[in-house]
Amino acid sequence: MDEILQYLERHRESFEEDLCALLRIPSVSADSRHRGDMRQAADWVYGQFTSMGLKAEIVETAGHPIVYAESPPVAGAPTVLVYGHYDVQPPDPLDEWVSPPFEPTKRDGNIYARGATDDKGQMLTHVKSAQAVLATTGKLPVQLKYIIEGEEEVGSENIESFLDDRREQLACDVIVISDTSQFGPGRPAITYGLRGIAYFELRLTGPKQDLHSGTFGGAVTNPLNTLAKMLAALVDGAGRIQIPGFYDDVVELTDTERAQFAVLSFSEQSFMRQIGVEGVSGESGFSTLERRWARPTCDVHGFWGGYSGEGAKTVLPCRAGAKFSFRLVPNQDPVKIGRSLEQMMRALCPPGIKLELIDLHGAPGVLVPLDNPYMSAAASAVERGFGTTPVFIREGGSIPIVNAFKAKLGADTLLLGWGLDDDNTHSPNEKFCLADFHRGIKASAALWDELGKLNA
Amino acid sequence: MDEILQYLERHRESFEEDLCALLRIPSVSADSRHRGDMRQAADWVYGQFTSMGLKAEIVETAGHPIVYAESPPVAGAPTVLVYGHYDVQPPDPLDEWVSPPFEPTKRDGNIYARGATDDKGQMLTHVKSAQAVLATTGKLPVQLKYIIEGEEEVGSENIESFLDDRREQLACDVIVISDTSQFGPGRPAITYGLRGIAYFELRLTGPKQDLHSGTFGGAVTNPLNTLAKMLAALVDGAGRIQIPGFYDDVVELTDTERAQFAVLSFSEQSFMRQIGVEGVSGESGFSTLERRWARPTCDVHGFWGGYSGEGAKTVLPCRAGAKFSFRLVPNQDPVKIGRSLEQMMRALCPPGIKLELIDLHGAPGVLVPLDNPYMSAAASAVERGFGTTPVFIREGGSIPIVNAFKAKLGADTLLLGWGLDDDNTHSPNEKFCLADFHRGIKASAALWDELGKLNA
Repeated sequence: MDEILQYLERHRESFEEDLCALLRIPSVSADSRHRGDMRQAADWVYGQFTSMGLKAEIVETAGHPIVYAESPPVAGAPTVLVYGHYDVQPPDPLDEWVSPPFEPTKRDGNIYARGATDDKGQMLTHVKSAQAVLATTGKLPVQLKYIIEGEEEVGSENIESFLDDRREQLACDVIVISDTSQFGPGRPAITYGLRGIAYFELRLTGPKQDLHSGTFGGAVTNPLNTLAKMLAALVDGAGRIQIPGFYDDVVELTDTERAQFAVLSFSEQSFMRQIGVEGVSGESGFSTLERRWARPTCDVHGFWGGYSGEGAKTVLPCRAGAKFSFRLVPNQDPVKIGRSLEQMMRALCPPGIKLELIDLHGAPGVLVPLDNPYMSAAASAVERGFGTTPVFIREGGSIPIVNAFKAKLGADTLLLGWGLDDDNTHSPNEKFCLADFHRGIKASAALWDELGKLNA
Repeated sequence: MDEILQYLERHRESFEEDLCALLRIPSVSADSRHRGDMRQAADWVYGQFTSMGLKAEIVETAGHPIVYAESPPVAGAPTVLVYGHYDVQPPDPLDEWVSPPFEPTKRDGNIYARGATDDKGQMLTHVKSAQAVLATTGKLPVQLKYIIEGEEEVGSENIESFLDDRREQLACDVIVISDTSQFGPGRPAITYGLRGIAYFELRLTGPKQDLHSGTFGGAVTNPLNTLAKMLAALVDGAGRIQIPGFYDDVVELTDTERAQFAVLSFSEQSFMRQIGVEGVSGESGFSTLERRWARPTCDVHGFWGGYSGEGAKTVLPCRAGAKFSFRLVPNQDPVKIGRSLEQMMRALCPPGIKLELIDLHGAPGVLVPLDNPYMSAAASAVERGFGTTPVFIREGGSIPIVNAFKAKLGADTLLLGWGLDDDNTHSPNEKFCLADFHRGIKASAALWDELGKLNA
């Protein structure tokens, strides 16, 4: 192992240069104008694998390509599937970035760029660890299979058919994903729970064109007033979502979990300082951590309609739209919730308005059992990489693929978070701590070693 | 009068060419990028007056200039002040125009362009009528004073100080404005009532920047959810506005008025066809005409916030905003309503959200007494111009200046509408019927004649 550690030490700079090279590629999967950049990012990842001698392949899909690679089988040792994604969120609002989103910039120990932590930086730790092991010992203690996809930020729509097509080839004992956060700086976490999501776009159409609000106002149903009513109806004053049956299948927090969350050194004051607010709100009866990790939510992500320019335009607009989603917890079913939502919206839709509800994507929540040997191996590996034992937490975000892996490959997922809550994921000035990048590579190398000790 | 009518006949084409010349100037007062076009439009109107031998002047203001012109006093005859505006609404959404908004285009008897009916076309009828009278008889039967301003679409902010500064110069017996509509094609109307307006912009700020809705959703107050709640709270399910005290000063419709409205041949079916909706809604207990003409309203004109691009972005946005206004009826006070609105909004504002409410402009409603000689003169003039007696109606729109004229010059206003409800005022494909343009010029010439018969 010392050889490997020395190799990691010697290659800190070249690893960072490789990370910057990938971050420079604006691989925004949601925006079709970046189709070419998506291809370039896939090619770059493919090159990483081939250059370290792994068998690799760029797999075409109906959307953006998947990069697949694998190392030779290791008799008696488990097979480990590593999942990550090379696509990123759109960078807007652009004017709020201190340095441009696709010009990676080092400041105070961090690398700033869209995708730094989600997920290019974290994903790369599991690539560089294998490179180090291969370069020093010539072989890996476990068989590694990599799926690096390009549609995670748009709902991973084409990965499921890939899993179906390659079921035998992808057979594995455990899955490793680093796309989550530590609990705090220097407090690495293993995430055993994730929230699901049900994401929708609602489009309302009123009159055939914009009208004068003086001549017509009061007698013509206004799509913007209507959209506000519909969005407002989704959540009550106590933060409870009003879709009929929404809470029916919710797995409530256990007293043990609530107790574990309560002892974590979480400061609501510093949380508010971090995001720059003077107060918080949410579902009554739950703490901030509980609201973020283990309770369902409704957030409007964007709305549009009418005049937003300078001055006052007295118009009754003909169209309005909104994007919004519900974070789900086990065992809520996004499809069932979508059906109930559509019924509710149609019931609320007044005369003179046409309604279109588009289901953009959905995935249920996840709970990984804590009592399996892979989880213990991961805990040891994280301790070897970060010099401290990890805490076991849940996360508010969604990684829909984890459900697919369980369903199609029958394997649980180890969610090893190298990021931080203030990494500005999905926001301007996204960053990744470079020390954590290197600690993550070290922990990943240790993980192959720990997992190699287990029998398949 | 025959001479004048022959002159009008001979000059139909040149009048239309002049109208097109003015319509080609994109004088959008709300958009500072059009400052130069505003100046050009003012110069053009100034040129109309000087070329017909009137004393004219371009009056600078804190905003866009006012064009003022006057003819010599006529002993024993009333002095008539004509008001109009050369500014127009923004043309967006541009892609919905059949022909470009500032390239006037004739189709099926109409001229299509932004400002065609509101107010360049209607305003010009009172200029061309004077040109005809002067060219044929050498003098006007009444003294005319013209105020053509450039800020009507942005709240006429600088005209009041102009009225204060020029009180003696502007002294007049009656005011004439054509910026309203006929009741229907070939059914010219004199509008004796207008709604007022109170127009606001609401800006909400939450966290210091956009956040990941998975990591933070449920525990951080979302400005978009909050804005939807606030806008939704303004109106209840019965279409009643919920601002405390909002209806306190409302002058209710008289039974006589409701009876008059009821007998007007208004078809709700054709109204719905005209605007392309399958149903309408509004304040319970009132007809569509009553809702449009004589009841207060709340319309959201635009809202913005978060992600509105392609695909799904799971963001908790940091900012949201909306523009909305209330149409007011006599005797509601926009200032009083603004104060009450702000109290209501602040009471609704949850922890973690900062609120800014901007009062963009306001004006009370108007009711002009029907029993005065000028009203009768106007009725005769409209009949001479259009060949049919006008109907007396109210209008849902606001012309704040009418209040200012009453307050500062002590004169009532004759609202002579040459436009049509389907002229697409403030919308794409705004138009003005060319036959009404010429009938309006004829009626205007007749008006100077009828008013000339009255003693000052």
